[in-house]
Amino acid sequence: MITKEIIINKFKEIQSEICQKLEQLDTKSTFSVEPWQHHSGGGGITRVIQNGNIFEKGGVNFSAVEGTLPDKIKNALKVEETAFFATGISIVIHPENPFHPIIHMNIRYFELADGTYWFGGGIDLTPIYVDANEAKFFHTELKKVCDEFDSSFYPKFKTWADNYFFIDHRNETRGIGGVFFDRLNDKSTALTKEKIFDFVCKLGLSFAPTYIKIIENKGLNPNCSPDNKKWQYVRRGRYVEFNLVYDKGTKFGLDTNGRTESILMSMPPQANWVYNFQVLPSSNESFTQENLKKDIQWI
Amino acid sequence: MITKEIIINKFKEIQSEICQKLEQLDTKSTFSVEPWQHHSGGGGITRVIQNGNIFEKGGVNFSAVEGTLPDKIKNALKVEETAFFATGISIVIHPENPFHPIIHMNIRYFELADGTYWFGGGIDLTPIYVDANEAKFFHTELKKVCDEFDSSFYPKFKTWADNYFFIDHRNETRGIGGVFFDRLNDKSTALTKEKIFDFVCKLGLSFAPTYIKIIENKGLNPNCSPDNKKWQYVRRGRYVEFNLVYDKGTKFGLDTNGRTESILMSMPPQANWVYNFQVLPSSNESFTQENLKKDIQWI
Repeated sequence: MITKEIIINKFKEIQSEICQKLEQLDTKSTFSVEPWQHHSGGGGITRVIQNGNIFEKGGVNFSAVEGTLPDKIKNALKVEETAFFATGISIVIHPENPFHPIIHMNIRYFELADGTYWFGGGIDLTPIYVDANEAKFFHTELKKVCDEFDSSFYPKFKTWADNYFFIDHRNETRGIGGVFFDRLNDKSTALTKEKIFDFVCKLGLSFAPTYIKIIENKGLNPNCSPDNKKWQYVRRGRYVEFNLVYDKGTKFGLDTNGRTESILMSMPPQANWVYNFQVLPSSNESFTQENLKKDIQWI
Repeated sequence: MITKEIIINKFKEIQSEICQKLEQLDTKSTFSVEPWQHHSGGGGITRVIQNGNIFEKGGVNFSAVEGTLPDKIKNALKVEETAFFATGISIVIHPENPFHPIIHMNIRYFELADGTYWFGGGIDLTPIYVDANEAKFFHTELKKVCDEFDSSFYPKFKTWADNYFFIDHRNETRGIGGVFFDRLNDKSTALTKEKIFDFVCKLGLSFAPTYIKIIENKGLNPNCSPDNKKWQYVRRGRYVEFNLVYDKGTKFGLDTNGRTESILMSMPPQANWVYNFQVLPSSNESFTQENLKKDIQWI
């Protein structure tokens, strides 16, 4: 029997393990530890790393909160019950070097007082410079975790990520996608609650080794030019646009009066907006721009 | 009889006059001129200044578009008719120096095929460092324009601005406010359509002299420290948050598939997010933070 307490404890454990592994890679900065309370019940532990060797700014947030759904969210979720419990880990990492991609990971569990529950989550990668080999490796690692549980998961969740991490007003994806899923339970899948929980945890635990390997493959400190940095700041601006205009987790957090600093730890340390920025033809930037679209099979 | 054409021509004239005056002050950079077409009819002229002596990035946008309201907006506006015409000028200026405030101005006219119309608009100031004298001058200038038409306008529109330019998740106002109004017509005010149009134009024309005076009062290039710049980037981050999370004009533009670069010309050239940024007690930054609240009578 998977109880809230079991999920909470396991998620906290995963949070610690991820922070420890990222600190080992960074060697300079460590994660702060900030416990906080939610006004309507529960709370969380926000862990942030800033100004590291590798990580310019990164947050690994754990939360477990109780509350009442505002009407807006209740209607959006199409549920009747309003007393909710939600727990999850949410990560966004902004590396300093433009050749190291931004990454996001989230695993979450949601339960209503009437017993309805579901798991959700995802991992997606936002390279400043798209690299087909890196994208292939990343998607292969995700597929491995998915395939262990259900061979339909990867193709389904990959498409879901393409559609979810999409910046409509730019007509471009946020990055090269990954997996995204929501409302997984014993009715919507062929798995038991225990199995889905296991899947979500394994996905969460795959985050650190996969991301660390991606960084090591690029080298810890690849050479970069001022133009590379400029492009990084522009791409980060798009990341801000996605998170503030479209991201459901951000909206949910702000709409339920969550802790703003924990919700917006996903914001990059610096972002720039240049009016009508155009990439040069046949440049690495234009290769990236051309690959910010749905339905690319990276594997 | 105030026709669409009269409004369009006057708004274009105001756009030109404002750009000319700001260029005279800047002396280094000039406004680009970019005409564009809207997919559903009409278009606009986007004028942007970048990397000037005074203005790091500023946009003065004119648009006059026709289209069909998406359901979402139709419901939000509580109207039946969906065929619309909208024209307006929208300005956001991000000066380079942290002692020069960010400013925003918008005047707009909206009409439905069934004859319903209204004017809206506003001017508000977002100082990086709040200065009581500057705030008093700014509000006094706005009040003068309002009082010429209706003595109830300034107090009403000042409160409206306090409520509109509010960053809920930060529990702070965007800046020191100004005036904001919407849905002004011969039913909602004691004025004729001609008079309201006149008010809106006079407000638009007051923008450049008022803003230029504010900058001249501070000096064209006041000394600033790296800490002043850091604070400026943090404040600009809040500006981004307001525009992408709350601003109705931005939402309207994005939801009606407007020209993204024209809508998001309001984004600052650079913004930073520092996790859990805290101002020092008794600093100029803390004075600013304390004054980012509603209902301050600056005059």
